Amino acid sequence: MKWRDDLRQLDKEIVLLAHSMAILGWDQETYMPRKAIGERAEQLALLQGICHDKIVDPRWQDAFESMGIEDVNRFPVEGLSDDQALLREAFRRYQKEAALSKDLVMAISRQTSLSQAKWAEAKKARNYSIFEPELKKLFALVKEKAETIGYQENIYDALLDDYEPYMTLKELEKVFDDFKGPLKDLFFKICDQKSDIPHDFLHLPFSVEKQKKLNKEVLNQLKFPFERARLDESEHPFTTTLGMDDVRITTHFHEEYFPAAFFGTVHEAGHALYELGIDSRWAESVIADGVSLGVHESQSRLWENIVFRGKSYWQGYYPELSKIYPENFKDVRVDQFYKAINRVEPSLIRIEADELSYNLHIIIRFELEKRLFAGDIDTKDLPEAWNKAYKDSLGIMPSHNSEGVLQDIHWSMGAFGYFPTYSLGNLYSAQIYHKMKQDISDLEQDIANRKFDKMVQWLGQNIHQYGKFYRAKDLMKKATGEDLNPKYFMNYLNQKFGEIYGL
Amino acid sequence: MKWRDDLRQLDKEIVLLAHSMAILGWDQETYMPRKAIGERAEQLALLQGICHDKIVDPRWQDAFESMGIEDVNRFPVEGLSDDQALLREAFRRYQKEAALSKDLVMAISRQTSLSQAKWAEAKKARNYSIFEPELKKLFALVKEKAETIGYQENIYDALLDDYEPYMTLKELEKVFDDFKGPLKDLFFKICDQKSDIPHDFLHLPFSVEKQKKLNKEVLNQLKFPFERARLDESEHPFTTTLGMDDVRITTHFHEEYFPAAFFGTVHEAGHALYELGIDSRWAESVIADGVSLGVHESQSRLWENIVFRGKSYWQGYYPELSKIYPENFKDVRVDQFYKAINRVEPSLIRIEADELSYNLHIIIRFELEKRLFAGDIDTKDLPEAWNKAYKDSLGIMPSHNSEGVLQDIHWSMGAFGYFPTYSLGNLYSAQIYHKMKQDISDLEQDIANRKFDKMVQWLGQNIHQYGKFYRAKDLMKKATGEDLNPKYFMNYLNQKFGEIYGL
Repeated sequence: MKWRDDLRQLDKEIVLLAHSMAILGWDQETYMPRKAIGERAEQLALLQGICHDKIVDPRWQDAFESMGIEDVNRFPVEGLSDDQALLREAFRRYQKEAALSKDLVMAISRQTSLSQAKWAEAKKARNYSIFEPELKKLFALVKEKAETIGYQENIYDALLDDYEPYMTLKELEKVFDDFKGPLKDLFFKICDQKSDIPHDFLHLPFSVEKQKKLNKEVLNQLKFPFERARLDESEHPFTTTLGMDDVRITTHFHEEYFPAAFFGTVHEAGHALYELGIDSRWAESVIADGVSLGVHESQSRLWENIVFRGKSYWQGYYPELSKIYPENFKDVRVDQFYKAINRVEPSLIRIEADELSYNLHIIIRFELEKRLFAGDIDTKDLPEAWNKAYKDSLGIMPSHNSEGVLQDIHWSMGAFGYFPTYSLGNLYSAQIYHKMKQDISDLEQDIANRKFDKMVQWLGQNIHQYGKFYRAKDLMKKATGEDLNPKYFMNYLNQKFGEIYGL
Repeated sequence: MKWRDDLRQLDKEIVLLAHSMAILGWDQETYMPRKAIGERAEQLALLQGICHDKIVDPRWQDAFESMGIEDVNRFPVEGLSDDQALLREAFRRYQKEAALSKDLVMAISRQTSLSQAKWAEAKKARNYSIFEPELKKLFALVKEKAETIGYQENIYDALLDDYEPYMTLKELEKVFDDFKGPLKDLFFKICDQKSDIPHDFLHLPFSVEKQKKLNKEVLNQLKFPFERARLDESEHPFTTTLGMDDVRITTHFHEEYFPAAFFGTVHEAGHALYELGIDSRWAESVIADGVSLGVHESQSRLWENIVFRGKSYWQGYYPELSKIYPENFKDVRVDQFYKAINRVEPSLIRIEADELSYNLHIIIRFELEKRLFAGDIDTKDLPEAWNKAYKDSLGIMPSHNSEGVLQDIHWSMGAFGYFPTYSLGNLYSAQIYHKMKQDISDLEQDIANRKFDKMVQWLGQNIHQYGKFYRAKDLMKKATGEDLNPKYFMNYLNQKFGEIYGL
């Protein structure tokens, strides 16, 4: 077929440009000199514009028309060919991008770089007003983009679709509604407990040099392929794909709390293993990407929470850890350590929250986003609305905006509709783990022995290799035998925390 | 004028793309995971191709034709306007690039990335045959490029013009012929000396941690602006410009020889100060670049050799240095140290050579390049020809190719015609320093006190700010009052080494 050579080359160029932008973005977050931010924004905007032109190249339109492609949902699931999958995803990308003018695309790219820089400054200064004017501009541009692309029922559909393709607000709310109640019940039961779990030993000095070695050690346990990947430091941890053989993660060390960098690193490593596991036949194509942020997050959460915050792992590895920090852990038994790293409490910072209340942080952001896009509140109202929501949901209030509305980078990047995918990730991860446990005998024993080969292989075979070949919902059904079902996550939480808290 | 808005935007996009490529290149040399090399080459080739399209955009041709621009040498020197300078350099760039097909440009870019990777591998393995097949391909492409662009007398003119714009082989040979004889005379006189300068204390363990601090300290003496610049590590030290406010240098630490990283760092810092000193009104334009590699090298050499290998600096700073490494220097007086870091000897490695015999290393490479492009020798003959030239000129032979033909990165990057600019840099630097010394009273005293403000300011005013506004020869005349004259460099060498060796 003519389109194969021609469009696959065009598709390849789009991906090469996206990866080039990822390099510029990675550098901006890790090593770039401070004053270079202005020109970096210009560089990224230019590349974004060039990329846009290639995504909406008329040859795509011609091909789609000549093949009668009109609706991404009309492709088959069973018997889907490689060509069909490529066309489906290229069509999706084309539709979204063609709706936008190049000016709007470049304006968003430029504004994103600036907003992000102002966010970092504002967070440092604990001063929301430094950030708000740039956020306001970015919010307006993102809203314009969503309106231009269009949606069936709610503007939030258009936002969500960027991060959890093919999912609607209605579907998302149904899933959330199913587990919100049981989640809050469990949370309140735990909060009502009289005795707290001792955890002071986690908040002691932990030499950063040793933390760095520890992070490297845990990445080696995962056989993290350093010839195709890197670990660096940045303000906010992230994973980014710079090429099919170049996936980079970052972490952030806290001198008096080692779990932040440790669990942050295995979290990002989970993302990286996903990207590194995509079948090389998809290299430099639209398929070579995580299928959705929710599924992506399932990979990071599965490692971070289910495996590395699990009992089996620490029964195996705690003796080693306590040798690395003998001072800190000399009077701490493994069961005490295990409970401490899983201690549930109302908290202010999302990325430091326990895996249970974490979902309440997400629900707060999700509700704020819906109100923002419904026009019920404005960007300048966010700190107040944020603080009120924390008061209502978790019973606590930030003492300044850097531990409140300024804590997350996402909105400064224009990423509205992104947060819900974190909770989706939790839901997916429990369902996937449930199935994996049925398929791999002695799974918990492997974890205790830090033998992760079979798990990585199972995930590669059932999730990673496919990239965007299947839609997320089809992939989940194929991998686990059923549609997304929140009961697996609630079962997991009830069992784990029931045991820890003796409920 | 119409061209102003339209073409300046186009010019800006070209520079933004060039800087984006510089980011990818910098990352490749510093942090990129090993296996990413293949896709990095593809990314760079794509950006190179996009950049090519913008350089030869038909709007340039239209503008040049409508303004009757036909010859870069017909622009005035006195009274040159900003617009004229921009047009002259854009026309130069256009002419060179328009002669080339996009396929050739992309083929060179791709081959360069691959050859560079193979060079690094070959150097490590001390095995030229790993590198030769890729060098052969690259050489053929560079030759094709030179033939396509064309030249007046010698194919070497086309090569040289990429690095020392507006200079011909004839002019270059005249300059080299003028100082080759006196240079060799001085070198042989020194080699004939009976007694050698003691220098064992330079070849001792120097803790890399302390070297890092020392490098930072000397950069602080130069007021190196870390908010607009960086220092990193790479196999081969280099300077690269990623943006008007983002200039990065690298160094390479040797655990048993501190001068390598120290003088390497101040060398690269000299390059960086040039780029950082270009007037911001030229930001993101074709003018915002060093005028020629020779003049660029004059800036690095002036700092590295004349200032930091000079007597005044060490009379001031040696007490501090000997406090940092008390073991190494406890029995060494400043005059002994000064002589040791300036010791002349026949040597194999160009970047470790003294500033006198350094020029013999350059002449060897220059002669080999001429023979290669004249077809007298082939890439496979290079090791033998190299070794013979070293035997003839310096009386010594490499014991393996990594200290011979594989030592330099340049040819692996397709940079033929580049080496002579290093010696041009030495010649320019002495002439510039001669004039600067007339203009700044107590210059040597300032150096002894590590007060470099006046020097940086003088260089900024007379050299840096202009970028490519003037041609190199016009800039030199303006800054120093006369054309390039090798006598200043020979006077400098005769005086410095005459004193050191008591000639």
